Amino acid sequence: VSLDQARALDAADPLAFARERFRFPDDKTYLDGNSLGMMPASAPERVARTVEREWGEGLIESWNEAGWIDWPERIAARLAPIVGARADELLVCDSTSINIAKLLGSALAARPERRVVLVDESDFPTDRYIAAAIAEQAGGELRAVSAEAISDALTDEVAVLLLSQVDYRSGRRRDLSATTADAQRVGAIMLWDLSHSAGAIRVDLATSGAEMAVGCGYKYLNGGPGAPAWLYVRRDLQQALGNPLPGWMGHARPFEMGPDYVPAPGIRRFLTGTPPIVALAALEAGLETFEGLGMAAVEAKAAALADFFIEAVEVLAPEATLASPLGAADRGAHLVFAHRHAYAIVQALIARGVIGDYREPNLMRFGFAPLTTRFEDAWRAAAALGEVIAGRVYEGARFAERRRVT
Amino acid sequence: VSLDQARALDAADPLAFARERFRFPDDKTYLDGNSLGMMPASAPERVARTVEREWGEGLIESWNEAGWIDWPERIAARLAPIVGARADELLVCDSTSINIAKLLGSALAARPERRVVLVDESDFPTDRYIAAAIAEQAGGELRAVSAEAISDALTDEVAVLLLSQVDYRSGRRRDLSATTADAQRVGAIMLWDLSHSAGAIRVDLATSGAEMAVGCGYKYLNGGPGAPAWLYVRRDLQQALGNPLPGWMGHARPFEMGPDYVPAPGIRRFLTGTPPIVALAALEAGLETFEGLGMAAVEAKAAALADFFIEAVEVLAPEATLASPLGAADRGAHLVFAHRHAYAIVQALIARGVIGDYREPNLMRFGFAPLTTRFEDAWRAAAALGEVIAGRVYEGARFAERRRVT
Repeated sequence: VSLDQARALDAADPLAFARERFRFPDDKTYLDGNSLGMMPASAPERVARTVEREWGEGLIESWNEAGWIDWPERIAARLAPIVGARADELLVCDSTSINIAKLLGSALAARPERRVVLVDESDFPTDRYIAAAIAEQAGGELRAVSAEAISDALTDEVAVLLLSQVDYRSGRRRDLSATTADAQRVGAIMLWDLSHSAGAIRVDLATSGAEMAVGCGYKYLNGGPGAPAWLYVRRDLQQALGNPLPGWMGHARPFEMGPDYVPAPGIRRFLTGTPPIVALAALEAGLETFEGLGMAAVEAKAAALADFFIEAVEVLAPEATLASPLGAADRGAHLVFAHRHAYAIVQALIARGVIGDYREPNLMRFGFAPLTTRFEDAWRAAAALGEVIAGRVYEGARFAERRRVT
Repeated sequence: VSLDQARALDAADPLAFARERFRFPDDKTYLDGNSLGMMPASAPERVARTVEREWGEGLIESWNEAGWIDWPERIAARLAPIVGARADELLVCDSTSINIAKLLGSALAARPERRVVLVDESDFPTDRYIAAAIAEQAGGELRAVSAEAISDALTDEVAVLLLSQVDYRSGRRRDLSATTADAQRVGAIMLWDLSHSAGAIRVDLATSGAEMAVGCGYKYLNGGPGAPAWLYVRRDLQQALGNPLPGWMGHARPFEMGPDYVPAPGIRRFLTGTPPIVALAALEAGLETFEGLGMAAVEAKAAALADFFIEAVEVLAPEATLASPLGAADRGAHLVFAHRHAYAIVQALIARGVIGDYREPNLMRFGFAPLTTRFEDAWRAAAALGEVIAGRVYEGARFAERRRVT
């Protein structure tokens, strides 16, 4: 592996043009699009239009004139080809945490005779914390087991199985359809967290048959820091399911302001409060960066980048140990490498403009957001990693406060 | 009353300078700042800085470098003088609906021997819908009674009393301290919705002794469409209260990503998901419009505007019947007038650039956002109202779809 080889791969990359849809600092090797996607080049103007024209000039009338009231559905429709769902099965709203709470509560209400929420004990913390709280509030119980034990823990006590498809640390990928079938075989509802999948790999929600999913807007979807999240409820189930956080925006006729809550038909019933319009404008710019891209090609690009990085690290930084699955089909679009000085190494890399992140207890995480990452970036990061480790540069690395949003 | 008199009042208005903090269309008479506050002149640049510099250039490092991680508390601190609270009692997060859900759930958990949530049956719909759902999920019961019956309904079965201080329709104001004392006398927790109070009238949360409050960011606080909402929990109670939607951002050490949820000390435990950074930037610009303004002066301005409008309507549009309290001390900063053709009249006014809104069943609502409304606006609106009613202009008014966010 060499810089020349990386550049040749970039030159031959059929997705290389997608990077031109973004604006980014030239002095950084950014391998953290799995935490915060780069800024779409259209985002500043898109947000400015909403702020200056729609809010500043249109004022309250923009709820109608600019169609703000429909944005949670309209913008979600742009996600449909990215996650393999139908537009009327998707909604953009709230945070991932809140959406997990909504759908878990909804699932528990739909399985009144079952009270167990099953999760992977190593899943992303917010999923587990929220699941524990919602299960308890429903008079139920959280069962958190190891990734390997999920299958055996699927019994007819389980109301809902909540899982991230791609693990936020290891990057290990679950088979969407097979796992969904496992859950459904025992009558449990499948709720996927696709935060580390959507926009990174090919996701076929409709094909999988999963009942529910949620995901984050600010990672591979490039929606901006703290972007609104999304949720999915399979079309045939929507009418039977309730929203346990029923706000006025999910009402069938929100502006009648009647005495009782009447859920809107379809997916809109999962709305709660007033849509976050300015943030939605940024998210729309993010989703537009996928326009015309096939998700199979997107996944292939991520796999090729990660494979190249694994090879480069083997040669340039052999002390770093791959702690993600070796086969691309078993991974999302990020990799972790273990090293006992992982934290300090990541700090030293950041000081050199190579941006990855650290995950407890000893993991260096590098993301290969397929729309924005070049093979050259992968090579530069591997080379920097090798230099930092070989030169023990990390020994002088500043021990900065550990406050990064994943 | 005359246009000259209105202009003289504007010339003598000690708060007139505050209007210069906003940018707005010159061709509108905007009396809907109670629904969506005008755009602060600083908002476009403030939002652009967050999008282009902090996100576009700083990328993931902005969580530290731009301090994003602290924005929910830092920006909430700007609200402290507006609502008479201490900075460490406030947090900006989620929507008003979600924050009501959080604090109601928290209150019910803190009063395990009581299961009744008491509300005003005419309160804003989202408050009642959410309260009904949360009460039911906690094995309890919603009691919705008329405004007049609240006092009698306060029994030792009531866990929490949820009330809007200022009614979204009538504008009727409740005494914060007296009502709080009534609730506390029977051992109930007082949860205020200050959506129609904060930024409109003087609010002294600390003095009132109320346990909890929530409010909206996009009305009088000028935070932009669907702006993040806020919540208040009295300082001495924070350590004892839990967040029923415990996401990773409310964890004591969110980046350790440990197995169990450990609530952050203080108000931060009421965070759930990742903070909506772009929306928070706009909200900060909104809160900055209050810089240096005394809330007593803000309230006095709103009262003077509304009093002037009442007088002008009496003279210019006598067919419209005031349906808000006559005394300024009994009101927030908006007024409603009844007319059997209210909906069509509001449409005809909007067609003339006079922006108020309609509320079921027969109410025309006009807001006097004290930082942005001029006496001239009040006069123009009253004159237009008189012309529309006298000339039966409303008979030709387009019956547009009723979709406006309050």
